[in-house]
Amino acid sequence: MKYKIAIIGFGTVGQGFAEILEEKGIWLKEKYGLDFDVVAISDPIKGSVYAEEGLDLKKILSLIKETGKIDSYSEGIKDWDSIRTITDTNANVIAEASPTNIETGEPGIMHIRSALNNKKHVITTNKGPVALAYRELAKLAYENEVFFRFEGTVISGTPALNLGLETLAGIKVQEIRGILNGTTNYILTEMESGKTYEEVLREAQRLGYAEAKPDADVEGWDALAKVLILANVVMGGNLRVQDIERTGITGITLQDIQQAKSENKRYKLIGKVRKENGGIKASVSPEKLNTGDFLAQVNGVLNALTFVTDELREVTIVGPGAGRRETGFSLLSDLLNIHQLLEKSSSTIDPSRIVTC
Amino acid sequence: MKYKIAIIGFGTVGQGFAEILEEKGIWLKEKYGLDFDVVAISDPIKGSVYAEEGLDLKKILSLIKETGKIDSYSEGIKDWDSIRTITDTNANVIAEASPTNIETGEPGIMHIRSALNNKKHVITTNKGPVALAYRELAKLAYENEVFFRFEGTVISGTPALNLGLETLAGIKVQEIRGILNGTTNYILTEMESGKTYEEVLREAQRLGYAEAKPDADVEGWDALAKVLILANVVMGGNLRVQDIERTGITGITLQDIQQAKSENKRYKLIGKVRKENGGIKASVSPEKLNTGDFLAQVNGVLNALTFVTDELREVTIVGPGAGRRETGFSLLSDLLNIHQLLEKSSSTIDPSRIVTC
Repeated sequence: MKYKIAIIGFGTVGQGFAEILEEKGIWLKEKYGLDFDVVAISDPIKGSVYAEEGLDLKKILSLIKETGKIDSYSEGIKDWDSIRTITDTNANVIAEASPTNIETGEPGIMHIRSALNNKKHVITTNKGPVALAYRELAKLAYENEVFFRFEGTVISGTPALNLGLETLAGIKVQEIRGILNGTTNYILTEMESGKTYEEVLREAQRLGYAEAKPDADVEGWDALAKVLILANVVMGGNLRVQDIERTGITGITLQDIQQAKSENKRYKLIGKVRKENGGIKASVSPEKLNTGDFLAQVNGVLNALTFVTDELREVTIVGPGAGRRETGFSLLSDLLNIHQLLEKSSSTIDPSRIVTC
Repeated sequence: MKYKIAIIGFGTVGQGFAEILEEKGIWLKEKYGLDFDVVAISDPIKGSVYAEEGLDLKKILSLIKETGKIDSYSEGIKDWDSIRTITDTNANVIAEASPTNIETGEPGIMHIRSALNNKKHVITTNKGPVALAYRELAKLAYENEVFFRFEGTVISGTPALNLGLETLAGIKVQEIRGILNGTTNYILTEMESGKTYEEVLREAQRLGYAEAKPDADVEGWDALAKVLILANVVMGGNLRVQDIERTGITGITLQDIQQAKSENKRYKLIGKVRKENGGIKASVSPEKLNTGDFLAQVNGVLNALTFVTDELREVTIVGPGAGRRETGFSLLSDLLNIHQLLEKSSSTIDPSRIVTC
């Protein structure tokens, strides 16, 4: 099967994905038998283009670089909005990379619903729809016999959901806890060198780690979305935003940090999901960890997740939690995952593919 | 498809696997649709039993506990050796859990070859065959259209090979480095509290972490086998034992440890595979890491692997590297992996299964 991809939302993540596809196309075909075209891109600001025989990604990426827009692309249909791009193009895979809205989940939910109802696979990095409407969308995917994948919604392309659901299949997970937001982890790490919260926040904003309006990060909303996804997808819960206790890091002073340091401890913003009294409990809050604790060693913009399990005790994965290529890669990861499950020949591994590395 | 499993080698790992299957059978069927019987077990010391309609694992496990043997089991055929158990039973999955021999790979290679030639899937924890004959066996599996899986050969059930090959598909791995042997890591960790190598080794032997003849661990042979597997399976190399530089930990004195400590460093036995000059280089040797280095924080019997990649920079997984249930679980992990690839209905996820956790 040839994958015909439409990218909805062409910001950092969508562009990162397109870059990877452009650079790795030949290798992906050689190594995994993955054959694809990007047939459409639609973005409310950068424009829209659809060419059923496939777009030249190199051209698209240089257009974006030069003009910030894609509508001067020489061929194709230019004026379709996101919904029409999803429903009326020949795309069979929709890569939903529009921005997260944790209050409404829109326009992501609408996009994904349309795609699934039109029997198109969905891969997404958009946390909103998964955090707020996972059960509905998973059911829709099942009924329409297509895939709904979203590895990048939790700590970017670093395996978190695939790890919990597939790589660790057969395990019973009792608890998942981790550092799920790079911005707050960077701030807490930097405050240890004696800078105040305000100083470090300004620095983080200058470096592009924090938004001008930093609430989504520092008030714990971003971590909450990820905790909600872990709770509902990996732990089988059915939690809503309001079920999760949430405390951000804005209350943590330089004194707190220094006090912790003197006790050989370190503040981390910890997202946690655990089985409790037959249900699932979840929270986001700063915790003082012993410096010997593994998660206490995860500093700066790194993220980490610990799975507390029955058969393997604790398994921890550490990796980047954000980034253009890192999050863009998660979409490729989802696509390869779908490909592996669809492709009959994957029932055995062709050794000629194994040796290509 | 119903999986009919024959377990070859019924030591700690084989028993751990049987325990898990016995305890989780109903749940595995409910959650993953995994339907299986263990139809045969063969062990050169504990005896052999084959009952085509399936064995009662509860009875088998209590027989082992009470008598150390399985041949007083009330039904079935009792005198078949491992090869006949592989070739002549109705088993369609062979769980090869006989001990590793890193010099010859036997009897594992012979077992696995027989199984694959008879079109039976193979899941194994035996490092020898994978380290020494991976290409031959992978080719045989491909030609016979069956699976050959061996997650447990590298750091037990903690995902290492599945992580590198599948969960991180689409990534180019430039280097893999890690702590691959729990015994030596325990010894090095304990020496930091001022005990000599000999003292800690005796302690480790008493606790069952080290063998009476500890060479496989302390001379780096066990880590070497794992490095060889990572090099040839994940990195696409074609290395042999003699291609790997190997230094154990026997030359490390208490003075060395204390000297390192005073430099804010810590000795770890590091296995490493890296791309170099168009080829694959691999080594096992003690390294002095900065205590801020992530792998330096992995202490005691824990193991860890860092993948240095193109898209995700460094991704590290930390988890148990050995143990009865931990390694037994890797066989279940392999079986579920095969099941997922064979089962048509896995093309979409039934939401009724998602919610069981």
